Formats: sequence, structure tokens, C-alpha cells
Amino acid sequence: MPLKERLLIQRIRRLATRQKDSVRAGIGDDCALLSLPRGHQVLVTTDFSLENVHFRREWHPPDAVGHRCLTRGLSDIAAMGGVPVAAFLSLALPPELPQKWVDEFLRGLLKLARRHSLPLAGGDTAQSPGGVLADITVLGSVPAGKAVLRSGARPGDLIYVTGSLGSSLAALNELRDGKKLKPAAHAKHFYPEPRVAVGRWLRDKKLATAMIDISDGLSTDLSHICEESKVGAVVYEKMLSSVGRSSRFVSGHGFSRAESVAQRSRALAPDVLELALHGGDEYELLFTARPDRRVPKEIAGVSVTRIGETVRGRGMKLKKGDGSVTSLRPAGWEHFG
Amino acid sequence: MPLKERLLIQRIRRLATRQKDSVRAGIGDDCALLSLPRGHQVLVTTDFSLENVHFRREWHPPDAVGHRCLTRGLSDIAAMGGVPVAAFLSLALPPELPQKWVDEFLRGLLKLARRHSLPLAGGDTAQSPGGVLADITVLGSVPAGKAVLRSGARPGDLIYVTGSLGSSLAALNELRDGKKLKPAAHAKHFYPEPRVAVGRWLRDKKLATAMIDISDGLSTDLSHICEESKVGAVVYEKMLSSVGRSSRFVSGHGFSRAESVAQRSRALAPDVLELALHGGDEYELLFTARPDRRVPKEIAGVSVTRIGETVRGRGMKLKKGDGSVTSLRPAGWEHFG
Repeated sequence: MPLKERLLIQRIRRLATRQKDSVRAGIGDDCALLSLPRGHQVLVTTDFSLENVHFRREWHPPDAVGHRCLTRGLSDIAAMGGVPVAAFLSLALPPELPQKWVDEFLRGLLKLARRHSLPLAGGDTAQSPGGVLADITVLGSVPAGKAVLRSGARPGDLIYVTGSLGSSLAALNELRDGKKLKPAAHAKHFYPEPRVAVGRWLRDKKLATAMIDISDGLSTDLSHICEESKVGAVVYEKMLSSVGRSSRFVSGHGFSRAESVAQRSRALAPDVLELALHGGDEYELLFTARPDRRVPKEIAGVSVTRIGETVRGRGMKLKKGDGSVTSLRPAGWEHFG
Repeated sequence: MPLKERLLIQRIRRLATRQKDSVRAGIGDDCALLSLPRGHQVLVTTDFSLENVHFRREWHPPDAVGHRCLTRGLSDIAAMGGVPVAAFLSLALPPELPQKWVDEFLRGLLKLARRHSLPLAGGDTAQSPGGVLADITVLGSVPAGKAVLRSGARPGDLIYVTGSLGSSLAALNELRDGKKLKPAAHAKHFYPEPRVAVGRWLRDKKLATAMIDISDGLSTDLSHICEESKVGAVVYEKMLSSVGRSSRFVSGHGFSRAESVAQRSRALAPDVLELALHGGDEYELLFTARPDRRVPKEIAGVSVTRIGETVRGRGMKLKKGDGSVTSLRPAGWEHFG
């Protein structure tokens, strides 16, 4: 192992959060060794964060890249109603990368990990043949048989989303247009918050019949639930517009700004509704619940909005404000590449 | 998600081995959901296989790259005495890569997976910003408290290795010299066999006090056991030479060939002993056992050779055939980059 990699491992070891009791052996053995609560199942998710595919070094400060990297994994655990147990980071770095970039990347990642009491329990390091390459694996646990799958929705279930939708893609469009953005003012894009507490609460209360995180865009991720649950869906434009309007982007900059983004008419022709329907990289939760169950308007401090319902048959429809109905097609966000 | 990635996921889904009972949900949900035997702990390991770092497309046929990718993970599970439970593959591909390459890569990986009854239970796909990028995560299970760590050796333990050492680096040196090699004739390099059954047997019989797989080279990996167990070590040249001599490389090509490799005197000046001491990429197991325990000469069809012993204090020594003693320094293999 080259010296630089060995130093990186030592650095990660030092920076990594104190190992929890559940982690018996970690960085420094052939494998990490974890104990799960009795009667629990293991959740596993892995997600790439590749330079010029999932982030750009000129757009995203390193701590935001680290934060977003871990959010991708935590959000998947949240979408199953799980509790994150340990994270594993495979990290390949180009030789010319400044050490400060790596430190800031790890700081951003570990800060989010600490907020979830999540140990960084292992991983791999290598020299990168091109660009920063990260792959995050997150393990979670869930009581046996209680994980919320994509396949549990039944016709007549109501459809809900957490938080707001669209501002991450809106910020991305501004970055694409060459704008400099203050990361703190666009937290939804730079520091998206995985909805772990919400997902856990919904599972604990047996409220969600199916759940997914919105990583590819509402229209695409809803189509996954429909496909796996073998149902159709109707989304109400009126309900959805409030999800778009409540976004930090809109409230922070005024509506005219959002519309001026829309005017520019990129590939997705994003207005607020389009952004909410198809904007990805959101890490909000999309879930269904039986119509006779009361779903709070806020869970763990996060707003929850009803946006539609599942129906018999296949396909997704959008019910407009004027009562007309159009077909809703999955049109997920593209990567940055 | 771009169409090509979606097709890749469908292809993996189709090619992947039939999900075992232990995998409740797999590719197609936010996370894989696994059940472990009661009273077991989880083992986790992640390993990169990056083009031009861990393999070269002009040297390694795609099925060998897939095989080696999974071997890296399985070997770590073996080194803890674990049983592999599920694999997760993050795979980023350059747009111009022929589909046939991907199919062959997956075929090599899944063939090895099937031999270990290992389901490919998830992962991630992306477009690569440069070269083929794979990251394999393997989960294993081990009865609680029974994993074989690197830290369990005590002074006076005997040191053993499985199989033979040196032929993987010897093959690599030939590739570096521009030789064309028949992969089947150099299986140790192209299709290294993870010692899962040996590791499991040693753990089951409570024979191994400490264990590691030889990925960075015997001298480096032995130094890890010494460091974690807080012991020193003496390796006997005479015992080690039989490990080198029994190698497929040597038996396949005759000794003169091995020596001609040595003559060329690359960075490591490899003769058979040097190759055995410092050659990495081997995936044999290095372990210690109490001196009063009988260790078979063959376990699960793999030869086992005593090569030395641990001692009080720190540092590693090499005892030569003439009785003289020299210091043994960790000098692991370099990557291909």
C-alpha cells in the first residue's frame, strides 16, 4: 500500500467517530464485525459519488460532497424505515488532490455521521485513475419483517411526500448556468438532510404501506412504487404545488426567481411544478398509507403533504387544477455528466 | 437514471443468482434486506477494483476482472473465519465500453459467486468519468464472538500459510514485461481462489489465534498481525522456500524461468524467496496457532505450511538457511498504476 493511502487510513481512523458498542472490530482488521439487536434484519445499500457524475469540484465544496455522499446511503436506510448502524467508505483520490480537500470531505461526511451516531467502520482506499471516486455502503437494522418495502401499496392508499421538492434541481440549474451559489443558502442541494427519523417513525407506527426516497425525481420514484406494488397512481397538481411552493429555494428567493429559472427553459422546462414532479437529488421520502389512517402534517419536525392516491390498474396520471387529467410519465433527473 | 444504466441493472438482475432465503428484498428496493442466523455477527468488507490500478483491460480478460473483484471481498470474509452471505456491486462504466466486456465481467463474478452460493443482492451503477470502476461489498456471518481477528496471536504461536506464494506477482511481472500470458495457465494470478472453506474450518476448530489474507504481501500482512497482536515474528527461509517452490508458477514453467524473472531485477528484485515474502495479490491465508495444536498439512484440499513463529517483543526477523538472522521489513507489492 502506498504511503499516501496508509496515511489516509490513519487519518480516517483518527477522524472517525468513536466506535459504538455494536462495532466490535473496524478499520484495521480484514472485515468490520458488527452486532445487531436480536430479532433484527440487516439493511444494506451502496451508492457511488463520482466526480463529474454526482458532483463537481468547482461547484460543490468538499464538505458538501462528503455530506451528500453519506446522505445517499442514509436516505436509502430511511426509506426502509431502518436505523443506520455503520458506514463504510471506499475512497479513491487522484495524486494531485490537495490534502485539505480530503480533510474537508471527511469533515462533512463525519459531521453528518455523528448526528446519526453512525460509526465509520471501514472501507477501502486507492489512488484514483481519474477524479475523486467515493462509494458509500451503509448498513442498517430493522425489526424482522417490519421493513417498509416499495411493494406494499394497495389501490386506494393515499400518497404523501415529506418536506419540499424541486429546490435541489433548481440550484443545480443555477450552477449549470454558471451562477455562484452560497451553499448555506441552498442547503437543500448542498447539505440535504436524510429523513431517517421520519422513516423510522412511519415504520414504528405501521403507517407507511410502501416507501421510497426521492433520488431520481418524484415521477420516477412513484413509478417504482407503482411497479413494485402493481398499482396505478393519481397525483393532484394542486396538492403538489404546495410542496413546490414550500421549498426553501422559493421562499428564500421569491417566486419570480423560480420563474426566471423556468423561463430559461432547460431540457426539463422547469417551472415549480415541473421541478417538484421531476427534480431528483432530493432525499425526501415518498410513501403511501391506508386512507383510514391519520398521517400527521409534521413528523420529526418535517412537513408531510398528501399529493395523491393509488388506484387499481397501471400507469400514473396528473389531475390538473381545472379538473382535466393528463398522463404522468417518469422523467427523472439526469446526472451532471 | 440513463437508459444504459437501467438496462445494466435489469441485466444484473437477470444474471444474478437466484436469491437465497436469507435475502428478503434485493435489487429493486432502496436497500437489500438480509436475515442472519440467530446469534451471529455481521462481517462487512469493501474493496475497489479500479482499471489501471487493480487491473488493466489489455492484460486481464473481463471474466478474470470480475472473478478477482469478488475474490478480494471473499478473501476478507475468509480471513475472519466467516461465511459469505451476500455481495453488493457498485459498477461505473465508461460509455464506450463494449457490452460484451460487461457481460463477461459479470459472468466471471457470478460464476465465483455461485460456487460460494452467494447472491448478488444489490449495488449501484453509474456512468464512469474514466475507466471501469468497481467496488465490491461482501457481507458475511460468524457465530458471535468467534471471528478470528488479527489481534489474537500470543508469543510462541506458530505461523502458517495456505497454498503457495509468489506466482501472482511473478505473472504480473511477466505482464509488465509485455508477455502475453494464457490466463488458464496462470490461474493464481487471473482466477485466485479465496480460501473461504479453510478460514471457516480453522475458526470452527478454534485452531487459528490470528488470521489475515495475504493481499499486500506476506511481509506486510505478517507485520499487521504482529502490530495488532503486539508480538514479534521469526520466519524461516527454509520453510518458506517450500511455499515458493510449490507454486503453480514454478511448477508450470520450471525453476529457470522463475530465476530469469529474478535476474531482470525489477523494483523488488524478485527471486522465488523475494516473491514469496513480498508478492501480494495472493489471497492465501496467513494465520497463527498455539504450538500444542496439530495443524493438518492440508485443509479443504489446500496445502498448509508452517513458516515460522511469533515471539515476545516487536519486529520481524528472517532466519536464513545458514543460521544467520536478518531483519524482515514489510515491503508490500505496489499497485499496477
